[in-house]
Amino acid sequence: MAEGAHSNIHLALVHFPVYNKAGEVVVSSVTTLDVHDSSRICRTYGIGALYIVTPLKTQQNLVGRIISHWKTGHGATYNPTRKEALLKTQVINSLEDVIADITERFGQKPKTIVTHAREHSRSIGYEGMRKELKKEKQYLLVFGTGWGLEQNIIRKADFVLNPIKGSEEYNHLPVRAAIAIILDRLFGVLR
Amino acid sequence: MAEGAHSNIHLALVHFPVYNKAGEVVVSSVTTLDVHDSSRICRTYGIGALYIVTPLKTQQNLVGRIISHWKTGHGATYNPTRKEALLKTQVINSLEDVIADITERFGQKPKTIVTHAREHSRSIGYEGMRKELKKEKQYLLVFGTGWGLEQNIIRKADFVLNPIKGSEEYNHLPVRAAIAIILDRLFGVLR
Repeated sequence: MAEGAHSNIHLALVHFPVYNKAGEVVVSSVTTLDVHDSSRICRTYGIGALYIVTPLKTQQNLVGRIISHWKTGHGATYNPTRKEALLKTQVINSLEDVIADITERFGQKPKTIVTHAREHSRSIGYEGMRKELKKEKQYLLVFGTGWGLEQNIIRKADFVLNPIKGSEEYNHLPVRAAIAIILDRLFGVLR
Repeated sequence: MAEGAHSNIHLALVHFPVYNKAGEVVVSSVTTLDVHDSSRICRTYGIGALYIVTPLKTQQNLVGRIISHWKTGHGATYNPTRKEALLKTQVINSLEDVIADITERFGQKPKTIVTHAREHSRSIGYEGMRKELKKEKQYLLVFGTGWGLEQNIIRKADFVLNPIKGSEEYNHLPVRAAIAIILDRLFGVLR
């Protein structure tokens, strides 16, 4: 398996702890399409590892089955581009486990970068983050599902990215779209 | 309904004529999630109208039911942000009908812009297209589902956009992700 252009940069799609619409901390359900879309997007931009984070065993099993179906089951021959996308995708228990896994595999604790739909006092811009990401370190981009990452994850992160501004006040992008836009802003070749 | 920042720019998500994996011209199935995601993304960037293009009556009815559920049914109170996203979404028979509809509603035939996953002899870059789109004209961005738009649509288009390059040779982005990335490249406020 060839190393991607950004194999020191990893991504976590977090289903706990996140907020629901009512502001409660919940476990959101894994959407199978999120697994496929985020895998394809990460593959396009040469991301190292993609972690689907959920503490629920049933959901972990579901994601595990999706991945193995496309990687080694019937799907691998039916649609090889999907297999290729999923090669670096794995399911994991918690964000702490993601950080431990990266630290063990790559010999360095990753700097965490969170994304947030709202303005945050210490959020930084995309140009600044592009520069930061040129350093030879391990990085972890953290995306929340549901109504966003629980605030302690934001508080403890090394970096907070500016929210995506379109042309409108409306900011209810699907997490799949946010991942696509942010990876393109950070790693896309605009021409 | 407030006018969006780019109310002279419209988007068509085309399910016919497109290619399948074998290179045959087919009608692809509408994915309900594509309807929601593309509506939210278009709303974020202030796009004028979003057309879901399919000639199949059953699929037209399906999309019509989704839209009316969220616009006026139970969904409108359950999730108002989804209602807001769908206000400018409609289902339509063909790309010709999209062009006729825009011409009738806005008094001008739109310039068509197609996107393509492969290089094309006359494709142009995002900076050039950003400038073009500042003109006071009607424009229609055309996205293909399945394995891409039938070649006559590409041939007849006024503009062909450069393919999205990530960091890799892999280019199998879901159409939802392509819409998000391209609208951000054309209209996003990078900061």
